[in-house]
Amino acid sequence: MKLYQAILLTAITLPVYAGQWQALPDTPPIPTDNPQTEAKIELGKTLYFDPRLSSTGTISCNSCHNVMASGDDSRPVSVGVEGQKGGRSAPTVFNSAFLSVQFWDGRVPTLEAQAKGPVTNPIEMGMKDWDAVITRLKSIPGYAPMFETAFGGENPMTADNTAKAIAAYERTLITPNSSYDRYAKGEKTALTVQQLKGMNSFAELGCIACHSGPNFSGPNLPIGMGWFMKFPTFTGSEYDEKYRLMEDMGRFEATKKEADKQMWRVPTLRNIALTAPYFHNGAVKTLDEAVRVMAKTQLNKDLSDEQVQNLVAFLNALTGEMPEQTMPRLPSLEGMSVISE
Amino acid sequence: MKLYQAILLTAITLPVYAGQWQALPDTPPIPTDNPQTEAKIELGKTLYFDPRLSSTGTISCNSCHNVMASGDDSRPVSVGVEGQKGGRSAPTVFNSAFLSVQFWDGRVPTLEAQAKGPVTNPIEMGMKDWDAVITRLKSIPGYAPMFETAFGGENPMTADNTAKAIAAYERTLITPNSSYDRYAKGEKTALTVQQLKGMNSFAELGCIACHSGPNFSGPNLPIGMGWFMKFPTFTGSEYDEKYRLMEDMGRFEATKKEADKQMWRVPTLRNIALTAPYFHNGAVKTLDEAVRVMAKTQLNKDLSDEQVQNLVAFLNALTGEMPEQTMPRLPSLEGMSVISE
Repeated sequence: MKLYQAILLTAITLPVYAGQWQALPDTPPIPTDNPQTEAKIELGKTLYFDPRLSSTGTISCNSCHNVMASGDDSRPVSVGVEGQKGGRSAPTVFNSAFLSVQFWDGRVPTLEAQAKGPVTNPIEMGMKDWDAVITRLKSIPGYAPMFETAFGGENPMTADNTAKAIAAYERTLITPNSSYDRYAKGEKTALTVQQLKGMNSFAELGCIACHSGPNFSGPNLPIGMGWFMKFPTFTGSEYDEKYRLMEDMGRFEATKKEADKQMWRVPTLRNIALTAPYFHNGAVKTLDEAVRVMAKTQLNKDLSDEQVQNLVAFLNALTGEMPEQTMPRLPSLEGMSVISE
Repeated sequence: MKLYQAILLTAITLPVYAGQWQALPDTPPIPTDNPQTEAKIELGKTLYFDPRLSSTGTISCNSCHNVMASGDDSRPVSVGVEGQKGGRSAPTVFNSAFLSVQFWDGRVPTLEAQAKGPVTNPIEMGMKDWDAVITRLKSIPGYAPMFETAFGGENPMTADNTAKAIAAYERTLITPNSSYDRYAKGEKTALTVQQLKGMNSFAELGCIACHSGPNFSGPNLPIGMGWFMKFPTFTGSEYDEKYRLMEDMGRFEATKKEADKQMWRVPTLRNIALTAPYFHNGAVKTLDEAVRVMAKTQLNKDLSDEQVQNLVAFLNALTGEMPEQTMPRLPSLEGMSVISE
């Protein structure tokens, strides 16, 4: 792990402590081949909420990444079609646009690539393949004009464009104006004394070494280059067994490379107070305990209750403003359902 | 059945043909003990969308009665917690405020009483009982002030007030301004020639005998007095077996009264083109076929293809305007989830 980190550290200039308290930018990185347009975002929102993207017509993107809540589902692991449970906890969709790789193990570079995964995962949305998804979308007359307006061209209803629209919508799901952001922008009363103590601890203890940058998910890296850390770094604590930390080997499960064993993408800490339960398997129920586990497994430190409380107070200051949104209208097929079972 | 109908017909003056083409009223009946207020409606919308009203945190009212779609779930029968399937098809929530009894079998009088059912049904939302629901809601700090603003009083977080808020929200879910409504209000070009032919057939064939009134669900009756009909009235057709019409005995299952065998509340036909599949068990996939089945089982008539097409064209004219809505924000518990499993 140290070697792995060292390579990254050498490759990229990391201003870890200089200007370390940065507010969330107003907009996330936008890929040049998928510019934001109003029509595309509206289409993406509609697709995001459409449970007919699942085999049974019961699971939409929003089922597990609920944007009316905290961008996740408040569950240890999510429930897909036929009541099947997933292996990892749904990460929040909020501010995922700031991440340079997607999924817990960072196995894909973009939100576009991420959007294609769950739809055809047999235990998530359960569609047979993307041809089946597109066939179904084409059978709903209201979608064709939406794709035409958003993308133009001869045959705009494709898997790529579906993923692009969903990703464009997700790039609107950012949560600025947390107490922390207002503090970082100069409003010095935005944080309480306890939160400021926690903020100092966060830097001094070393949490910030991994959870750096405006999204608290590492430095700004080019899309596709992940900021990975080993979890647990310090093995052998009571937590390994208690929270089953060694069961899922993280990025190794995707790459099968020895160096990727127990490596995980550093997740954002924004809105962390609202996204319990914690970690990739959702095994830790409270934020207090999550802080203790992190200190022990990543920094080999036992925190005092006061330190934990201060850190939790600071983490609460990372709760931002979720965007106000209108509900999409899911277009209908007249006179019959596209779900057949 | 005839006797049953006759009793109703005697008891209530039924202007079935006089003024038979009525537009949807701007507002549904509002119970005097649950007046509409903005705070209550917003609370109700939030509860309606909150999957934490289910044991697993995966099913909200909106899961089966999706207001971004047609107020239902496009499925034969719905899927509740743990992937369990229900016995009857989810009816649309749109315009349910105009119905004088709720559920397919009309077993409860009000939307308030309806709202309490699915939450504690083990195959729907699966909560142990309403005490467990209220305990969970009380553990989410954001709900207390919403209940206080909506209801006031000493202890506003009750099952009754939860149901009242949801019902108040549902009374906003009406769909005016269909082509039919515009025609009924005097816009004579609002319907096509084919739709007008279908409209005449609808009256002449006798569909309107049951599907009367502005909601096409029977005459305006006092809340709690249902408009029930036998389905199938004419037994013995191929459809009885093909679509399993005799399996579910309707209102009898709730009352165990002989006279209630195969009796069903007459459902609304508004937005019927968008709520496939059809009937209490969702066994009929298309609106064409649903029209054929109704004509045969209720009127003992075999329709020509042209009659079916005209009737379907008319039924398409009953698709109204779904309300534009903002998404609610589901309040969070900080630092832990209320879902434990």
